Amino acid sequence: MVSRATAELDVPPRLLMGPGPITVDPRVLRAMSAQLVGQFDPFMTTTMNETMELYRAVFRTDNEQTFLVDGTSRAGIEAALVSLLEPGDRVLVPVFGRFGHLLQEIAARCGAEVHTVEVPWGEVFAPEAVEDAVVRVRPKLVALVQGDTSTTMCQPLAGIGEICRRHDVLLYCDATASLGGNPFEADAWGIDVATAGLQKCLGGPSGSAPVTLSPRAVEVIDARAHVEAGIRSDQDTDRGTRIASNYLDLGQIMAYWGPRRLNHHTEAGSMLYAARECARLLVAEGVDAAVARHELHGRAMLEGVRGLGLAVFGDVAHKMTNVVAVEIPDGVPGDAARNALLEDFGIEIGTSFGPLAGRVWRIGTMGYNARRDAVLTTLAALEQVLRGYGVPVTAGGGVCAAREVYA
Amino acid sequence: MVSRATAELDVPPRLLMGPGPITVDPRVLRAMSAQLVGQFDPFMTTTMNETMELYRAVFRTDNEQTFLVDGTSRAGIEAALVSLLEPGDRVLVPVFGRFGHLLQEIAARCGAEVHTVEVPWGEVFAPEAVEDAVVRVRPKLVALVQGDTSTTMCQPLAGIGEICRRHDVLLYCDATASLGGNPFEADAWGIDVATAGLQKCLGGPSGSAPVTLSPRAVEVIDARAHVEAGIRSDQDTDRGTRIASNYLDLGQIMAYWGPRRLNHHTEAGSMLYAARECARLLVAEGVDAAVARHELHGRAMLEGVRGLGLAVFGDVAHKMTNVVAVEIPDGVPGDAARNALLEDFGIEIGTSFGPLAGRVWRIGTMGYNARRDAVLTTLAALEQVLRGYGVPVTAGGGVCAAREVYA
Repeated sequence: MVSRATAELDVPPRLLMGPGPITVDPRVLRAMSAQLVGQFDPFMTTTMNETMELYRAVFRTDNEQTFLVDGTSRAGIEAALVSLLEPGDRVLVPVFGRFGHLLQEIAARCGAEVHTVEVPWGEVFAPEAVEDAVVRVRPKLVALVQGDTSTTMCQPLAGIGEICRRHDVLLYCDATASLGGNPFEADAWGIDVATAGLQKCLGGPSGSAPVTLSPRAVEVIDARAHVEAGIRSDQDTDRGTRIASNYLDLGQIMAYWGPRRLNHHTEAGSMLYAARECARLLVAEGVDAAVARHELHGRAMLEGVRGLGLAVFGDVAHKMTNVVAVEIPDGVPGDAARNALLEDFGIEIGTSFGPLAGRVWRIGTMGYNARRDAVLTTLAALEQVLRGYGVPVTAGGGVCAAREVYA
Repeated sequence: MVSRATAELDVPPRLLMGPGPITVDPRVLRAMSAQLVGQFDPFMTTTMNETMELYRAVFRTDNEQTFLVDGTSRAGIEAALVSLLEPGDRVLVPVFGRFGHLLQEIAARCGAEVHTVEVPWGEVFAPEAVEDAVVRVRPKLVALVQGDTSTTMCQPLAGIGEICRRHDVLLYCDATASLGGNPFEADAWGIDVATAGLQKCLGGPSGSAPVTLSPRAVEVIDARAHVEAGIRSDQDTDRGTRIASNYLDLGQIMAYWGPRRLNHHTEAGSMLYAARECARLLVAEGVDAAVARHELHGRAMLEGVRGLGLAVFGDVAHKMTNVVAVEIPDGVPGDAARNALLEDFGIEIGTSFGPLAGRVWRIGTMGYNARRDAVLTTLAALEQVLRGYGVPVTAGGGVCAAREVYA
């Protein structure tokens, strides 16, 4: 046991073309290999402030409160919901895939009264459907996903932000899978709170959750916040509005990232470096250019799988740029084919869940892997695997169709 | 703004001799620079299983449920408390420093009825004091810190574990600051749940929280657990026992790390590599040998500061191996002196909190920095800084006294 487990880490080479996590940009790994400094070192403060600035550019916002939660994208979601929602608060969750159900579940654990509206997988909401529900439910908060990788759909948000402002409802958006690779405009669209992760279009590893909070969201949280000032925590346990989590209390985390730098958790230094580098690379490329890159390679992959003769699931006009759901051809064992792709070619594509289980593969082109060679290599390998199962694929059809997009 | 923030990360060299986080072992940084694999890649499963095995050796336990929470050590603490404590449950927190107050605060946020006993800073509890409180309070859980860096005290646990077994009370221990550098015996001491972090004696960065759960702790959690099986989350929101957090629900995290590998968060791959490497290096060195190393270098630092003529705070017989609280000599401005140490010598030592604010510095010798050269360099630099403030230090007295320990 010890001899096996104590071997040095020897990671097999993989091209991660699933719905995320994806291959990390080597420059991000390099940033993570930097040595740590202390929590209150002037360099630490500078790095945290720079990271806040960079994520303002990524989220397209002037929100002062733009920082990181130390955990995966799911920690960011829960931090937003547990900090905004008090027990008994009404929340409306428009659900169009698996991650909508996750918002629903987390909001329920916060003790909120959760109302949902749903559209079938593969579709998105018309703004009127959300407005009707807002009028009916009169929620404190609308919580929804921008890009739900389970269906590949990307919910248009501008109209929903407008509805929320008009009805004086807060709007939370989980932009984990979409940010950096699909248009996102926190301020222009009137989004009060957005959270994300690094492991999708931002080209980093999972483990840090960028978050941004509008001034009106900050007001809601400040009204609840009990800041652990100095040595003694607030012992006022009888106030119903106390945020149920310490670790994910955005009030305390704001105080930690703010000019007072009040002690909270010990910032995960390596993940901070990673998050800063992800945003730095994105801002250096230009956020619009990065979105255009995801559009280009996503379209190449889309046309490529079609060129192989495969059908694509869902409302393609509302597809995320960075992932496509490909229908598994009749007679092909989906998971065995994925394994063949992994074992013979070192390429990972994604399986699927719920109503789509066994029906589609999900192929991602995002972050570091939104690249021409990654797209063409995946299409070439997929053609070989499908051929092995006797699928009548067009020889060279995938690579050829993708090349036309690049031409 | 962009030009400044978009510069490449350029971290100043620091020797981190505070109470943690500390300088990361370069071998851990190297492990973190490895590329990711997919969440359900066979290599990922192997790596997770190896990590579980390694942490069983670190915690000295046979507990099957030994794994990582994706967050800082504080996330591990909250995961333990929110998963064990239901609203209204009685919990007893013996407080002997700042981190006892943190346990108290987190337990209160879980809705528990929190009872505390306290000893003055610089002391630890006699087992009888804890037993008296257990008899009086009749808690479901005793929650306490092993090593509280705020006071440098290390609470003996064997007797407390015995008391908890005798009274059929669960025992949770926050071993963040002590594990790997002080004796810790989860099974032999009867500790039901323990959590830690990487950024102290384990020589890694903050951001991953190793946790171990005894079978009886697992029973308590299983009784509450609602596992998100497949696509739909459990919607049974009326059960009072539902764990209030999804992200920190140890029931779901066990199901994710267990043989069924039920989807939960996206594991923070780079932090997993870090956590595995920290434990691998510790197990390769030998846990006893690592503790002995911390004892040696901790003693050298203790004798070194005494050799400089400085007084040491607290009950030294119950001091943690890995940190010493040094009384700031009269007339020396504590923070300015720390800054001088940082700016002139690149060495960080710690400030202090609460009753000790302004009274002591905390100097750590842990993880990668439990090393002879780190101890001697720190003592040499500290002598120069003190001399600058006119403190009548014995020339060479610190280094000389430390050398005697090493002789």
